[in-house]
Amino acid sequence: MAEWIGIGRRARRCYGFDEVALAPGKVTINPEEVEISWKLADKEFPVPIIAAAMDGVVDVKFAVEMSKLGGMAVLNLDGVQTRYDNPNEVLDEIANADPKESTNLIQKIYTTPIKENLVAKRVEEIKKSGGYAAVSCIPNNAAKFGPIAQEAGVDCFIVQATVISTNHVATKYKSLNLSEFCSKIMKVPVILGNCVTYEVATELLETGCSGILVGVGPGAACTTRGVLGIGVPQVTSTIDCANARDIYFQKTGRYVSIITDGGMRRGGDVCKAFASGADAVMVGSTFAKTSEAPGRGFHWGMATSHSNLPRGTRIKVGITGTVEQILFGPAVVDDGSQNLMGALATSMGSLGAKTIKDMHYTEMIIAPSIQTEGKLFQATQNVGMCK
Amino acid sequence: MAEWIGIGRRARRCYGFDEVALAPGKVTINPEEVEISWKLADKEFPVPIIAAAMDGVVDVKFAVEMSKLGGMAVLNLDGVQTRYDNPNEVLDEIANADPKESTNLIQKIYTTPIKENLVAKRVEEIKKSGGYAAVSCIPNNAAKFGPIAQEAGVDCFIVQATVISTNHVATKYKSLNLSEFCSKIMKVPVILGNCVTYEVATELLETGCSGILVGVGPGAACTTRGVLGIGVPQVTSTIDCANARDIYFQKTGRYVSIITDGGMRRGGDVCKAFASGADAVMVGSTFAKTSEAPGRGFHWGMATSHSNLPRGTRIKVGITGTVEQILFGPAVVDDGSQNLMGALATSMGSLGAKTIKDMHYTEMIIAPSIQTEGKLFQATQNVGMCK
Amino acid sequence: MAEWIGIGRRARRCYGFDEVALAPGKVTINPEEVEISWKLADKEFPVPIIAAAMDGVVDVKFAVEMSKLGGMAVLNLDGVQTRYDNPNEVLDEIANADPKESTNLIQKIYTTPIKENLVAKRVEEIKKSGGYAAVSCIPNNAAKFGPIAQEAGVDCFIVQATVISTNHVATKYKSLNLSEFCSKIMKVPVILGNCVTYEVATELLETGCSGILVGVGPGAACTTRGVLGIGVPQVTSTIDCANARDIYFQKTGRYVSIITDGGMRRGGDVCKAFASGADAVMVGSTFAKTSEAPGRGFHWGMATSHSNLPRGTRIKVGITGTVEQILFGPAVVDDGSQNLMGALATSMGSLGAKTIKDMHYTEMIIAPSIQTEGKLFQATQNVGMCK
Amino acid sequence: MAEWIGIGRRARRCYGFDEVALAPGKVTINPEEVEISWKLADKEFPVPIIAAAMDGVVDVKFAVEMSKLGGMAVLNLDGVQTRYDNPNEVLDEIANADPKESTNLIQKIYTTPIKENLVAKRVEEIKKSGGYAAVSCIPNNAAKFGPIAQEAGVDCFIVQATVISTNHVATKYKSLNLSEFCSKIMKVPVILGNCVTYEVATELLETGCSGILVGVGPGAACTTRGVLGIGVPQVTSTIDCANARDIYFQKTGRYVSIITDGGMRRGGDVCKAFASGADAVMVGSTFAKTSEAPGRGFHWGMATSHSNLPRGTRIKVGITGTVEQILFGPAVVDDGSQNLMGALATSMGSLGAKTIKDMHYTEMIIAPSIQTEGKLFQATQNVGMCK
Repeated sequence: MAEWIGIGRRARRCYGFDEVALAPGKVTINPEEVEISWKLADKEFPVPIIAAAMDGVVDVKFAVEMSKLGGMAVLNLDGVQTRYDNPNEVLDEIANADPKESTNLIQKIYTTPIKENLVAKRVEEIKKSGGYAAVSCIPNNAAKFGPIAQEAGVDCFIVQATVISTNHVATKYKSLNLSEFCSKIMKVPVILGNCVTYEVATELLETGCSGILVGVGPGAACTTRGVLGIGVPQVTSTIDCANARDIYFQKTGRYVSIITDGGMRRGGDVCKAFASGADAVMVGSTFAKTSEAPGRGFHWGMATSHSNLPRGTRIKVGITGTVEQILFGPAVVDDGSQNLMGALATSMGSLGAKTIKDMHYTEMIIAPSIQTEGKLFQATQNVGMCK
Repeated sequence: MAEWIGIGRRARRCYGFDEVALAPGKVTINPEEVEISWKLADKEFPVPIIAAAMDGVVDVKFAVEMSKLGGMAVLNLDGVQTRYDNPNEVLDEIANADPKESTNLIQKIYTTPIKENLVAKRVEEIKKSGGYAAVSCIPNNAAKFGPIAQEAGVDCFIVQATVISTNHVATKYKSLNLSEFCSKIMKVPVILGNCVTYEVATELLETGCSGILVGVGPGAACTTRGVLGIGVPQVTSTIDCANARDIYFQKTGRYVSIITDGGMRRGGDVCKAFASGADAVMVGSTFAKTSEAPGRGFHWGMATSHSNLPRGTRIKVGITGTVEQILFGPAVVDDGSQNLMGALATSMGSLGAKTIKDMHYTEMIIAPSIQTEGKLFQATQNVGMCK
Repeated sequence: MAEWIGIGRRARRCYGFDEVALAPGKVTINPEEVEISWKLADKEFPVPIIAAAMDGVVDVKFAVEMSKLGGMAVLNLDGVQTRYDNPNEVLDEIANADPKESTNLIQKIYTTPIKENLVAKRVEEIKKSGGYAAVSCIPNNAAKFGPIAQEAGVDCFIVQATVISTNHVATKYKSLNLSEFCSKIMKVPVILGNCVTYEVATELLETGCSGILVGVGPGAACTTRGVLGIGVPQVTSTIDCANARDIYFQKTGRYVSIITDGGMRRGGDVCKAFASGADAVMVGSTFAKTSEAPGRGFHWGMATSHSNLPRGTRIKVGITGTVEQILFGPAVVDDGSQNLMGALATSMGSLGAKTIKDMHYTEMIIAPSIQTEGKLFQATQNVGMCK
Repeated sequence: MAEWIGIGRRARRCYGFDEVALAPGKVTINPEEVEISWKLADKEFPVPIIAAAMDGVVDVKFAVEMSKLGGMAVLNLDGVQTRYDNPNEVLDEIANADPKESTNLIQKIYTTPIKENLVAKRVEEIKKSGGYAAVSCIPNNAAKFGPIAQEAGVDCFIVQATVISTNHVATKYKSLNLSEFCSKIMKVPVILGNCVTYEVATELLETGCSGILVGVGPGAACTTRGVLGIGVPQVTSTIDCANARDIYFQKTGRYVSIITDGGMRRGGDVCKAFASGADAVMVGSTFAKTSEAPGRGFHWGMATSHSNLPRGTRIKVGITGTVEQILFGPAVVDDGSQNLMGALATSMGSLGAKTIKDMHYTEMIIAPSIQTEGKLFQATQNVGMCK
């Protein structure tokens, strides 16, 4: 796998969604009879898709709706939901801002300090409406927000950095001890991320977490690779982390979920993530386009006031359907971004995979995608036949 | 051939039309003296091209015209031809529909139930006009439609699913027994598809079928790869299935035709399919642009009311020539989509292949196509010389 | 070099200009002191570039001008120059035709039969004006035109087919015996083409020819690959044929020139052709843009009345400079298509190659070109420094 | 690493920035605690970025500003700064010229002879304003300008050709003896370039130089590859030259800086250059867009009157920020071209690299970049999290 890239230096060839495809085998299954549920710790979810913790995607209402449909949505504790008593006011402001001023406005809005009482309040609001309460923050806020959220009845807590490690070096602040956080402080399932390698996944598994987010700089939706040069394509990183999960499971009997996060634009990418070993997938931009998303048809990065990193701009993504359409159809667009569950079930049926775990053993091939793929004759999508 | 794509996981590199080219050898032949006919069971066809079973491509009239020209056209038994006594009315409706409403209209049109009497009627109409009657349906309809069509005098019956297997698991309906269907129920040649691997092709060969359609998600004309993640490029899948055919022929003495279906956009792709081992090729969208096609310059997928898969839209493809022009020229467009038989004969001559079977042994090279290929200087197409 | 592309089938990876680059070594040379001349048989040409035998590129006047500048231009004996006493009339007609009617017009113009007396006349016209007379025809016309041209004083005769072989099978006409033609009938140097492999080059070398044209379907300027599926990228085909030349030279002491024909769009491509082993290069479309070209700013394929191949269209290429500018500058465009000799000399200097033969030993690397290359900052072209 | 590209010929696969990415490991560091300084000979620079010697980028004022910010800027001794007492006049002329006439104007402006007294004057002006005086010329001018600049108090002298070698062959002029120049004539640090291979780097190291510029034809900003066919991608060339530096250091104890020059368009590319082994990077076009650049929003190549090479055109690049913004932000554009130091520090933190030298040991992977990367959702740039 490693090739020479210079004198005395080798590098591993890694693969992304656009470079592989799934090959059918000797068995097919009626798509209506496959099982697509997954488990986080002891909780079973009918839908193995998680909405990402972005302010244009998830608020209390969205989280409740996603729960009712069988999935999970993660509320961001570092953004407008915990900085403002009434986040809808600033969300309106952002949506109505002039394009040229939107960046400045967002930067200003995110300088308002986080109110700790809102951390508890958002969790309680989700629970009160019958939703599954999953929340997320950066490592530096976890020691503070974790206990508050737990007290408020949170169901799942996510600690998420662009790149996470169990060995974070800092002299100016105290690094979060991930093992202590997952195994002692928190009684609810904790998900940690993001990581991309077998080694780091193995270290995260040993912290006692219940899930691991896989993905650093995987593609279009993230500028980590362009700005920082960092990134590992999602097929290889998911395979590697899933491999760590399986070996850890064989050793300990504890099954930790691998969640592929980022880089999936179409149903086919989601199917490939499961075939790579994912138990669930996390999707962001696709949900930003739903009518339930708090972004009102806009999407933006979680800009902060930190001086040493470029900030993002607000992007108009439009509203193309409901959360239910994204998950179960009927699709009204032809780009494979809607009816993800229908696509997954049909793919599993065609591949003879009865369960998500069966999907982990599907044969993959290396087959670079044709550039025009998906552009021409999008009309030809058919259950029985495709020409 | 297999490369590591992650820890503990390998994948095979597969190749598509755009990644290979044919290399000439030590012999050339006068293009007028090559033989391009093929055989399905005992019937010889002068033209090794089959028009695909799509409602915008094949109706009775088209099938008759294609037969007269020496080829085969397959009529779809799951679409408008068997749902409506007078399909031209709904075909007019589809062609005249407002673009925004065409999808809804098509979905509605395809909810009208199939009338079994029309299965027989269409076959009889083709036969009455002197055409070769080939019809197609999905596996779930085959047990019912096969005997009806046979009774009506059908010449060839095609059972076609996106992905076919001899082991289809379903508890809610009875799976079609392919061996029984091909060897006992049907007395006429049966073609099965689609498959992409040596293993499945071998199992299909043993059912007693006369032909196998090769191709799952091969390219631009199909969203299977984008939506379901499933697909194997056509050069590798054709080589593999042709290999299965040759080994089966050595064992049994029975020669079953391999038909490459999908992903061919130009004459060069057709030539590469034959060089990969195909006995015939199936083409869809190219024929949708003919004046004889029932789509009236429009093309659409065979949308159904099934809830778990995205549906297609109607696409305007325009009318660029007649069926005869597609097959024999003269070409009036320069994109290599017309005069396919002329291109095939000239290619065979340049490669020194006297017959289609000789083409199976042509040397292929791996040579990724240049993106601008075919865009500049399309003027320079010349028998004697090409600069 | 060969990789598996399917079960039981391997293919060789071949390389084109866009996939390789030249790496400088330990020596550099003042570009003004390199030697770029080449020899065909005993005749030395200061400029190793040949203008291709296309009707929009070479007429008598162009051939004379090219000769004066130290290069060679080939006049097409199968086109308007030998069909019309006054070809300028029909060239005007073609240039003035309505775009929609130009194809029909060209087809009609090329149905006028070739007049044998014009074969001699064109050769004599070139010679009378002091030019080097090189002419070209397809194999089927060579037995007739060769002796006529020789009688008229031709300096070099070229027999050119899309794909040439020493073993052409035809029952309806007599195949040209290439050995007899090169070694007995013709006393002047003969160039044969086109070929792409070591095997065929070796057979052509043994016919007694003085030069071999290398290139079948190499790129943008030719639709052979798109329409017929046939093509070998020029770096690999030139290396292979040059290898055959070197081995033949070691055996026989006779040095036959290898001429890379087609696929070169920029100075860098020309440099890579020489680094691949070429003694000279043949260029078509670049010269179509000169003010001396008979195409009047238009370029078209050598369309014939043959029924089984697509024909070309007339393309407007515009006039961007003179032949002298193409060869020696000054360049007024920035795309590397002008001042080819300046680019070659500078490249040779930077690579430490004193002669064209030294260029044959330049180190090549595999380095796929970046798509935006040459698009941005074209301003930065500088002798001393390039940033 | 070497693959067959033809019979009897192998070529090495080389890699560029777009083909690799950096993989995070088991340690992360607070980005505010990493060290990004570098040393040239004994002088330490807080900023490891050098502004390239181009007339649209560096003048006296720019050099002083860059020095104050902790970096280095190189003034071109072969351009307008030494041809004109008041270069601002001609820079205004260039900026105000009609697009069609700008090339002619620039060619004319650069025919004015270089005044040797201005070489000294520019150096003195930089020193007087407290700047670090680094100047550059082509090899043919070095013997003359080196001593003058040294006399005037220059801090660093750069000898730069498109391709440099210690063995330059010329009979019409005396080649510069690089060892004599670096070790005897000049007492200040000398930087030599450009080179791309282990062999040439090793020879340059032995001349006694203090730094080596790496990069020939690396990408978008240079037409060397398009026009001359010459070029080695920057990841491989930097790795190879850095390897030569390390081996030379082990032998001699003298550490010579490797400076990657060219081909970096975004922060991520800069990070990858350091991960390939660079001690500093040289950037041109990015600085042309600053308000301090003398080009007034325009950028052009260093055109000369030499007849055998194409010349460049003036390009409008616009003004997008200040030098300080390019280096330290805040970024107002989202393409990763601003806040390069912030990007580098964050990348180093995420990769667990405390110093630039630690970055040399970062794991690289081969991962071709997705074409749409950086195009969609540029909004999502965030310290804590990136989705």
